[in-house]
Amino acid sequence: MKFNIALLAGDGIGPEVINEAVKVSDAIAKKFNHEINWTPALTGACAIDAVGVPYPDETHEICMAADAVLFGAIGHPKYDNDPSAPVRPEQGLLLMRKKLGLFANVRPTFTFPSLIDNSPLKRERIEGTDLVFLRELTGGIYFGEKGRKDDGETAFDTCTYTRPEVQRLAKKGFELAMTRTKKLCCVDKANVMETSRLWRETVQAMEKDYPEVTVSYEFVDAVAMRLVQWPNSYDVLITENLFGDILTDEASVISGSMGLMPSASVGEHTSLYEPIHGSYPQATGLNIANPLATVLSAAMMFEDAFGLKEEAEAIRAVVNKSLEQGIVTEDLAGKDAKAYKTSEVGDWLVANL
Amino acid sequence: MKFNIALLAGDGIGPEVINEAVKVSDAIAKKFNHEINWTPALTGACAIDAVGVPYPDETHEICMAADAVLFGAIGHPKYDNDPSAPVRPEQGLLLMRKKLGLFANVRPTFTFPSLIDNSPLKRERIEGTDLVFLRELTGGIYFGEKGRKDDGETAFDTCTYTRPEVQRLAKKGFELAMTRTKKLCCVDKANVMETSRLWRETVQAMEKDYPEVTVSYEFVDAVAMRLVQWPNSYDVLITENLFGDILTDEASVISGSMGLMPSASVGEHTSLYEPIHGSYPQATGLNIANPLATVLSAAMMFEDAFGLKEEAEAIRAVVNKSLEQGIVTEDLAGKDAKAYKTSEVGDWLVANL
Ligand SMILES: CC(C)[C@H](C(=O)O)[C@@H](O)C(=O)O
Ligand SMILES: CC(C)[C@H](C(=O)O)[C@@H](O)C(=O)O
Repeated sequence: MKFNIALLAGDGIGPEVINEAVKVSDAIAKKFNHEINWTPALTGACAIDAVGVPYPDETHEICMAADAVLFGAIGHPKYDNDPSAPVRPEQGLLLMRKKLGLFANVRPTFTFPSLIDNSPLKRERIEGTDLVFLRELTGGIYFGEKGRKDDGETAFDTCTYTRPEVQRLAKKGFELAMTRTKKLCCVDKANVMETSRLWRETVQAMEKDYPEVTVSYEFVDAVAMRLVQWPNSYDVLITENLFGDILTDEASVISGSMGLMPSASVGEHTSLYEPIHGSYPQATGLNIANPLATVLSAAMMFEDAFGLKEEAEAIRAVVNKSLEQGIVTEDLAGKDAKAYKTSEVGDWLVANL
Repeated sequence: MKFNIALLAGDGIGPEVINEAVKVSDAIAKKFNHEINWTPALTGACAIDAVGVPYPDETHEICMAADAVLFGAIGHPKYDNDPSAPVRPEQGLLLMRKKLGLFANVRPTFTFPSLIDNSPLKRERIEGTDLVFLRELTGGIYFGEKGRKDDGETAFDTCTYTRPEVQRLAKKGFELAMTRTKKLCCVDKANVMETSRLWRETVQAMEKDYPEVTVSYEFVDAVAMRLVQWPNSYDVLITENLFGDILTDEASVISGSMGLMPSASVGEHTSLYEPIHGSYPQATGLNIANPLATVLSAAMMFEDAFGLKEEAEAIRAVVNKSLEQGIVTEDLAGKDAKAYKTSEVGDWLVANL
């Protein structure tokens, strides 16, 4: 098969981790007789520096023309202390999600046996955790009307959802639940918010189409608790944009493997794969960043975007092997163990595929 | 001194835990020569059953006339599966907050040395944690305009804040920080929400009035992570209503002492003290619920509402003693240890004051 992949390395350590994912992807392609055509494009702070906007039209066209997008990370400390600066890297992220119609953010949280002791949670709390959040990504308070009144003394944000928006996200949730343990949790704040009541009634109405799926409805505050108490009691969770932002990040730290968690954002026109970690500016250029989350995001891309399960499994297998053999960057290396460089980890993966 | 306290026992285990807090408060009053006049009033499901509304006018008048309100818990399972039922216990809670002007919810999270091993977090992560959330409680998306459009197919909620609303909450935050380690964290989502940008600019402008306080600004998703990773890195946190709902609940489970956490809601007209746990319907009437969070809420009332620090310390001391000596309800009793009844714990506290 032949694929066109848009390559958005972004800022900070983005280019370094993307580089290793490209090496591994190319090696897999070679092994399984595929051909990948990578098209790099600018996004984030580097795009602002180069052309003044964080998600240039040219980048958008490259993404639209691609079979999938592989994304690194964006963000630069020079924008950190002023969230109201007129142009910011994150705006590129939001614009990209909206323009590409990436309505479902898929965020798995699972554990690696060899890394469980890195978790802030006790082993018996985290063992066996394997959950997936589906976060709605193009609606809610992120994209509703917002502004000031009364000479700037009053601010407002509007959270809006339509029934079809809820349906398309929930459909993905039901379908995903069917491929797993058939448990779906709808996270909302239906005791307070009207949008949550729309979510809940919409999902309730869909239950009859998936009689095998057991659906529970939980309030966002209760989920924020249970994620820390009994994370392994969850399977698939669906939720709106802002709750998803908070809860997926909370979930990401419980596994002890945050530096390894991949994610996907799927939509109408294409799908995008990225590590959940950020641009880690302090490590930029040092060749020390952990590339595994990006490599595992590429595995998700092979499986979900191209339907190539064997290729994905091959990548996951070699990543597991690297963890077991301690071929890892300094964030995962034991106190007295050798820490490998970003590029050394990538080279090892390619050599051991 | 003489105090009038409105006593809102509420639903489920509310009356049982309130009963013990009253016993302890009366004993303290006697010991220190105060006089307490308790006025019981209905709220929650029991108020709906009795008079059809969850926060009757009569209850409101009793609260307004009181020096403080001691509150149990509300909620009943018969309302659980239908968040759009026309009358619900939680509406009473929201109405009460709004009508009493309880704009600041004070939620401490701290650890008891003897209970640290109950935490889902590893000991080294949780040890030394002593933080306080100030959650804005009468604004934001809870009370903004909400509804449906397009024949019910579109729902919306509005989050609104005015500068004075932010200022009065932030002022409490700065003042509280001054009495502690002088660290204040403002939690927002200023990279997305206009109300957050108002929060941030308002707090930034107040910094000069509290030159000794070190203020940090963090995004809500980052705080959701760090609360699990390094809870002891926080001191005072201020945030808006919905973020506060999620984060204070998340914080409450990390200590391993959720059943012991008190809270206060302070406002223009009066202040209200309540345990953070819920109405725990399954335990209703069994005399097994843990009364310590309510007893510690009464301690907060003595200190904060009446300015009686010594009385508060005496309550806290006897609670500590009961924990050390294992005079605890079944939720805290060790595997082979005796579990005391709710009323037995209260009796012991009174006898050992
Ligand atoms: C950078 C920010 C706008 C973004 C979001 O809130 O969606 C980020 O936190 C994320 O989750 O991808
Ligand atoms: C019951 C509900 C409306 C309430 C809230 O969201 O404020 C509760 O979760 C709380 O935190 O007191």
